[in-house]
Amino acid sequence: MSDLPSTAVIQEVGPRDGLQIEPKILTVEEKLRLIGAMIGSGLREIEVGSFVNPKAVPQMAETEAVLAALPDSGRVRYRALWLNVKGLQRAAASGRVAMDGKLTITASETFIRRNTNRSIDDTIAEMPEWIAAYRAIGVEPSALGVMAAFGCNFEGDVPPENVVGLIRRVEQVMAGHGCSLRHLRLADTMGWANARQTQRLVGMVREAWPDIGIRLHLHDTRGQAVTNAFAAMQLGVREFDAATGGLGGCPFAGNKGAAGNVCTEDLAFMMHECGVDTGIDLEAATETARLAESLVGHPLPGKVMKAGTLAQYRKRG
Amino acid sequence: MSDLPSTAVIQEVGPRDGLQIEPKILTVEEKLRLIGAMIGSGLREIEVGSFVNPKAVPQMAETEAVLAALPDSGRVRYRALWLNVKGLQRAAASGRVAMDGKLTITASETFIRRNTNRSIDDTIAEMPEWIAAYRAIGVEPSALGVMAAFGCNFEGDVPPENVVGLIRRVEQVMAGHGCSLRHLRLADTMGWANARQTQRLVGMVREAWPDIGIRLHLHDTRGQAVTNAFAAMQLGVREFDAATGGLGGCPFAGNKGAAGNVCTEDLAFMMHECGVDTGIDLEAATETARLAESLVGHPLPGKVMKAGTLAQYRKRG
Repeated sequence: MSDLPSTAVIQEVGPRDGLQIEPKILTVEEKLRLIGAMIGSGLREIEVGSFVNPKAVPQMAETEAVLAALPDSGRVRYRALWLNVKGLQRAAASGRVAMDGKLTITASETFIRRNTNRSIDDTIAEMPEWIAAYRAIGVEPSALGVMAAFGCNFEGDVPPENVVGLIRRVEQVMAGHGCSLRHLRLADTMGWANARQTQRLVGMVREAWPDIGIRLHLHDTRGQAVTNAFAAMQLGVREFDAATGGLGGCPFAGNKGAAGNVCTEDLAFMMHECGVDTGIDLEAATETARLAESLVGHPLPGKVMKAGTLAQYRKRG
Repeated sequence: MSDLPSTAVIQEVGPRDGLQIEPKILTVEEKLRLIGAMIGSGLREIEVGSFVNPKAVPQMAETEAVLAALPDSGRVRYRALWLNVKGLQRAAASGRVAMDGKLTITASETFIRRNTNRSIDDTIAEMPEWIAAYRAIGVEPSALGVMAAFGCNFEGDVPPENVVGLIRRVEQVMAGHGCSLRHLRLADTMGWANARQTQRLVGMVREAWPDIGIRLHLHDTRGQAVTNAFAAMQLGVREFDAATGGLGGCPFAGNKGAAGNVCTEDLAFMMHECGVDTGIDLEAATETARLAESLVGHPLPGKVMKAGTLAQYRKRG
């Protein structure tokens, strides 16, 4: 029998990681409607946009305007993405983003070079600058995100040992600057993870850092994301990123029709049915997914939004 | 770490459970092409059709013709469905169906009445007739299929205890006629199963009948089927039904857009990546799913068929 955690936290990333790939640019009003529905369904951590070059990602151009107009709910933490110090400073200046002091690395030399024009070594060498930039805005760096932590379209399988070694390198740099690593975000950026490997990586990380928080960012590219989340929950992981309706897709070559982020309500359905509480109202989350579908103007891959939850049938009984 | 079986068997049910819901009637030639591709991908158990009223299920009208024209491969077992003794006799008369002596019950009183116009008691009372009919064609009944074993749109949750009790009742009838129950097929007919419940039911069945074979028939109505299969494999289950591309759908009211059977190649992908061999060539299975999609004329829900397997990337490395 599985020993699952009694609660889990889903961070909604649909408005950022989901929408950024959509060709139709949503208006600020549409985004506010969508994020408002997410809040209404009980989501309490929402990545609402990114502070990146608007020419590169036009969907994110009005992130400041979205943030400024969002309800000032003390119960919700608004998150955002930045890729450089200028973006970090814009996020801090908005006054609306819950800053989490996160450093980022990628577990694939080829992928990090293609994405950022820097090597892994370069990226680690720049971390002291990031630490200083965080401290300049009053945030103590304590988290690390590892992209491509399960596999890479350019380099193939990423052994868990390599990921642990990379985390250890960053931890040493952090320690050299007086920072403690308290939280990890492991991202299956290109949809390579399987359940066995997920348990191996989580197990190795837990063994090396027993008290660290782990959040998984899973993509459903090959239909494995909910299974991988279940496998991780069996080892005590209780934080996950997800996107309403399975918003988003796979931006990598040849994968235009492939699925993107794990679907918020399908993941929450699994959790609730397995006795893991998320604080999410599944009926409302399903409605939110239908709203997201109408806003982007094409079908989303979520399954519960099509079949409905089981509450409708249980009421009859 | 999960202790998974080293091998698993996928019974392909696309040509029967998948196609029966499709409005476009495939020709015998199209079905032969599809089943031929399935054999070519390494599938060795294929449910090719059903012996039911052709007026009720026109897609299955030419099951005899399909069976007669299939290659006489000693490596492949062709399976079929029947709902009455006449159907059983037609299947036997074809000389091409691997007969498995399976009795069938449903774990929901309302659902069995709606489907068959008989109660659970009626159905159990008729089992001696089925046993005699099997013996008349030289087959010893030794298997039981339980439909709606996880939940029912009309009755709600189906407690594992009820399923075990029902199996026990049938086993007693079988024993009274000198039959041993050696194999169970537990079907999540309406897409209610979750991973925790799957482990509970499998665990209870294993405790009551340690040596019995268990096959799961999972539907992906709410995106949980691969996860449920993984959870079952953790308890040693190694037989699963699946449909190429996720062929099929949910015939129940209000669920027109819902997914159907768990997808063969997505399930096989999970198994292979987790180190569980199925004998299936995943590239060929993915091609078969694309063929199925072109034959039915609409997109299928399978994910690996859209994203591709990981072999293409591993070759580069």
